[in-house]
Amino acid sequence: MRAFFDVWFEMRTVEWDDASGQVRMIDQRLLPSELKIVSYTDYHQVASAIRDMVVRGAPAIGAAAAYGLALTASRSPSISRNELLADLERSAGELRAARPTAVNLNWALNRILSVATASDTQAHELRELVIREAKQIADEDVAINHQMARNGAVLIQDGDTVIHHCNTGALATVDWGTALGVIRMAHEQGKRVHVLVDETRPRLQGARLTAWELEQYKIPYEIISDGAAGFFLRSGQVQRVFFGGDRMAANGDVANKIGTYMLALAANDNHVPVYCVVPTSTIDLSLEHGGLIPIEERSAREVLDIQVGGHAVTPSGASARNPAFDVNPNRLLTAIVTEKGVVYPPYTENIWKSVSEGAAH
Amino acid sequence: MRAFFDVWFEMRTVEWDDASGQVRMIDQRLLPSELKIVSYTDYHQVASAIRDMVVRGAPAIGAAAAYGLALTASRSPSISRNELLADLERSAGELRAARPTAVNLNWALNRILSVATASDTQAHELRELVIREAKQIADEDVAINHQMARNGAVLIQDGDTVIHHCNTGALATVDWGTALGVIRMAHEQGKRVHVLVDETRPRLQGARLTAWELEQYKIPYEIISDGAAGFFLRSGQVQRVFFGGDRMAANGDVANKIGTYMLALAANDNHVPVYCVVPTSTIDLSLEHGGLIPIEERSAREVLDIQVGGHAVTPSGASARNPAFDVNPNRLLTAIVTEKGVVYPPYTENIWKSVSEGAAH
Repeated sequence: MRAFFDVWFEMRTVEWDDASGQVRMIDQRLLPSELKIVSYTDYHQVASAIRDMVVRGAPAIGAAAAYGLALTASRSPSISRNELLADLERSAGELRAARPTAVNLNWALNRILSVATASDTQAHELRELVIREAKQIADEDVAINHQMARNGAVLIQDGDTVIHHCNTGALATVDWGTALGVIRMAHEQGKRVHVLVDETRPRLQGARLTAWELEQYKIPYEIISDGAAGFFLRSGQVQRVFFGGDRMAANGDVANKIGTYMLALAANDNHVPVYCVVPTSTIDLSLEHGGLIPIEERSAREVLDIQVGGHAVTPSGASARNPAFDVNPNRLLTAIVTEKGVVYPPYTENIWKSVSEGAAH
Repeated sequence: MRAFFDVWFEMRTVEWDDASGQVRMIDQRLLPSELKIVSYTDYHQVASAIRDMVVRGAPAIGAAAAYGLALTASRSPSISRNELLADLERSAGELRAARPTAVNLNWALNRILSVATASDTQAHELRELVIREAKQIADEDVAINHQMARNGAVLIQDGDTVIHHCNTGALATVDWGTALGVIRMAHEQGKRVHVLVDETRPRLQGARLTAWELEQYKIPYEIISDGAAGFFLRSGQVQRVFFGGDRMAANGDVANKIGTYMLALAANDNHVPVYCVVPTSTIDLSLEHGGLIPIEERSAREVLDIQVGGHAVTPSGASARNPAFDVNPNRLLTAIVTEKGVVYPPYTENIWKSVSEGAAH
């Protein structure tokens, strides 16, 4: 486990290797049993990695998609600027389709494409420009996460028990994390924080990844079944609820990992504050409200393929439904934490102010 | 699977075998992979079976405990009436401690002990009396379930999609079921019902037992992660929510399998009716409200021991919390279905009327 940790601490979740011109990622499907690093040489592989959840977490898949375009830029045989731009557009189309809900993917691809299109450089310089912009997106993600963590950590009191849903740590981002990054910052500031980790069915990102990260950071935690959150909230054992987001509409409605809505409801029913921690790249100002966010439905196998004591649980002929996200109405959020600051209701007005002008207050 | 079904249909979940004087049960921990029948010859074994969840479901453990006393009655070496009564009290003490939340266990033990104490028979007749009373409890459970099912089936409309939590079918009772019995009755009455089956972490009674039962009854279903219920409720795909109960207080607050509270909240947030189906033996009139119901916390291993693709999910050093039940405040229930009828608010008044005088209306 120590060796794991050392390797992990030396690398980012997604990174560009200058020496080989490859994208490297941690294969998150194998954690915590195995820390495997995978390398990709073309954007098809990156699109598959996003689809199959080798890499997951809205900010991390944004950076991964950006590096997918960097692979196209560095390896495309096209000689002319226009051919290269067409290659980039084609790659972006495939990468964009890999997962529909998280908007960071779209945001990162659009940012690179606009920089590429706006430039008047020839193909050779354009390649460098795209790679530089992708690295810039990744570097900014780390800086933004640190800033969000500092902004959010003031919301945590010494001695708090918090519930956290899914994984929003270093593994969900290029480094450091969003909601879990806030918790980590509070811990580093010397506050005692205890985390109840929603296991987060069906993919178990909480039990698998968040638990593992918290162990590395030496933050005390206990895993709970998602359905148990209500018990702990109702019995007064929880002071705050934290989660991230995959796409937030202009009014603060936010799509996040399935199960978030029921958690937020239970927190509200018990007057426990609910904080959503997202970089502004997760806010999609083009959508007026959360009902417009596309929700990905993933394979039934993710629900059905579960074993206990080495034995299958579900009948062999069973079928399942598997929506990957739910939409949380803005009324359930006490505040939204971004790199610009902490945003309180009324959200439509204050999100717009925060994104366009800086912190709402 | 067919052979399974035939065997299963010929037996009850818990039964008394006159020929051998043994208690027989289905080992529910092995379903759906294996249908294994276990036989017990003393009450210690029955207490272990209840504790280890070989048998589970409030009505089923009530009957199992009653048969535990029947074993003591039939096999105790005591010769005098008073010695036998003391044996029965001692057995009841151990059986009662096997699981603290479900009140049916307590109810069945008390019923047998009062009949035994009130009788003026000598030891030999007392043995017969206890065995007869235990069988009576089991037979009544089946009749009560059928009556509850008829009472509740009128609440289901043709074409409904319902969410069901945990397992409340034939396997949770002596036969037929409580909440799932209502759904089964509606299906037998020719109504088209589609069931979204909460998998019900951590023990997965939904994915494991309810899915298997529904397959036998040919009722269409799909398994969902517990956290996905909110998505389906919010997107208007669900008409009703059904679950059972392990102990209901005099005011209608009801302890049920962990996760029920978050499900009931999500249904309420979307104006979807919530029905709790319990025999009156599950109602504990001695408790004014749900805050007085003892909640069992089970082993952390139940949360941590989960595999996907044959691999462990949680870090090896992980810890967990595992409350087995949560309490649903009566405000979240649209109605309560018992064998006496359908009870609507105000619950304190109407439950008392229903239990003491018959259906409230």
